[in-house]
Amino acid sequence: MHIDILTLFPEMFDGVLNTSIMKRAQDREAFSYQYVNFREFTVNKHNKVDDYPYGGGAGLVLTPQPIFDAVNHIKANVSNKPRVILMCPQGEPFSQKKAEELSEEEHLVFICGHYEGYDERIRKELVTDEISIGDYVLTGGELGAMVVMDSVVRLLPGVLGNEQSAPEDSFSNGLLEHPHYTRPADFRGEKVPEVLLSGNHAKIDEWRHYQSLRRTYERRPDLLTNRELSEKEQKWINEWKNR
Amino acid sequence: MHIDILTLFPEMFDGVLNTSIMKRAQDREAFSYQYVNFREFTVNKHNKVDDYPYGGGAGLVLTPQPIFDAVNHIKANVSNKPRVILMCPQGEPFSQKKAEELSEEEHLVFICGHYEGYDERIRKELVTDEISIGDYVLTGGELGAMVVMDSVVRLLPGVLGNEQSAPEDSFSNGLLEHPHYTRPADFRGEKVPEVLLSGNHAKIDEWRHYQSLRRTYERRPDLLTNRELSEKEQKWINEWKNR
Repeated sequence: MHIDILTLFPEMFDGVLNTSIMKRAQDREAFSYQYVNFREFTVNKHNKVDDYPYGGGAGLVLTPQPIFDAVNHIKANVSNKPRVILMCPQGEPFSQKKAEELSEEEHLVFICGHYEGYDERIRKELVTDEISIGDYVLTGGELGAMVVMDSVVRLLPGVLGNEQSAPEDSFSNGLLEHPHYTRPADFRGEKVPEVLLSGNHAKIDEWRHYQSLRRTYERRPDLLTNRELSEKEQKWINEWKNR
Repeated sequence: MHIDILTLFPEMFDGVLNTSIMKRAQDREAFSYQYVNFREFTVNKHNKVDDYPYGGGAGLVLTPQPIFDAVNHIKANVSNKPRVILMCPQGEPFSQKKAEELSEEEHLVFICGHYEGYDERIRKELVTDEISIGDYVLTGGELGAMVVMDSVVRLLPGVLGNEQSAPEDSFSNGLLEHPHYTRPADFRGEKVPEVLLSGNHAKIDEWRHYQSLRRTYERRPDLLTNRELSEKEQKWINEWKNR
């Protein structure tokens, strides 16, 4: 996979892209990236990338010309059809399913605005996906692009070792993860639940399943709305409801 | 505000914390930060921070001792009571409201795991808030901590100039932002809507309100569930429904 990142602040990315799994993914040639500073594509005298909004209002808006020309320049040099992703609060909420979908692509282009809105013609003509990582306001699209890249790159073949891939198992069954415990069995008076020390694997699985469902029920009931419940799960939930 | 960041990968943060608004916030003394590599608090021979999970299973679990001792060390040196935030997929979904709440604090401590789960005793004893930035799997808590920090720091008094604060206005009214346009009025055949060039501010406001609601209705109907609709908004929605 190749990723082009349109940004005015490439220096924000270095630490994240060259550490840990992202670094390993490059060492293993699972992905490569390039920064595209779209200010370099401006054709006006002062290399301005933004301007006042038509119709008035505070804030500036990114003009279409430099971003169009930067994306078209990228497209002109490749035979594939890249996904062009706009990071913005109005986008589709990012999800693990979307990460899986994007991990099938050969070439992604991220457009990261900073402070500002995008001229609507960028959305309409240039962009294949608009993504929001959540309902909160960030200074720019850069952190969002890093989040999407991290979640996508770790899914590429050969990137993760076994020790890192485990935590998503429980996520992918639609429930929050059950509690984990490691040594010591007694930490300053706080003990590990006895069942986990029992060696009885059927009981341990049952305990984990119960805890996982209970945590989801208490913290994120929204995750249960579209999930089919087994008879046992329904029974547990009825017990909690009647307390 | 002071922020302590417990992480095994401090180098991931540098680019993000020393660019743009985050840098300006430090220059203006609105916030300061410190990395705390909790590996330095281990008391075992090989400075191990993790161990196998009780009850079996793949993956490793962060042990309580180094994280407890690192947080207690931080607390011992301050008179305030810091919020201790665990970044994890099981946490409360992060929101703008939470960002506003955290921006009132004097001292935040972020705990960032990497690859692994946390020993449950960390959650139970040490942590005041568990936060998830979204329903997707990331390599570690570092990117999540950066996201929360960015959204919180930009709310601190004196950090944002006018030009950067505008984009959140429409977000805070519970709707997605309306489309923006800037020059040129005709970009390669794609024209700016005439109303925005009309100079009629009542009409422009109405158009923006309509577009903002329509975009929310089409893309994020979930945002409308708990929002009180005006008579005009209800009329628009009924029209779209009957199409």
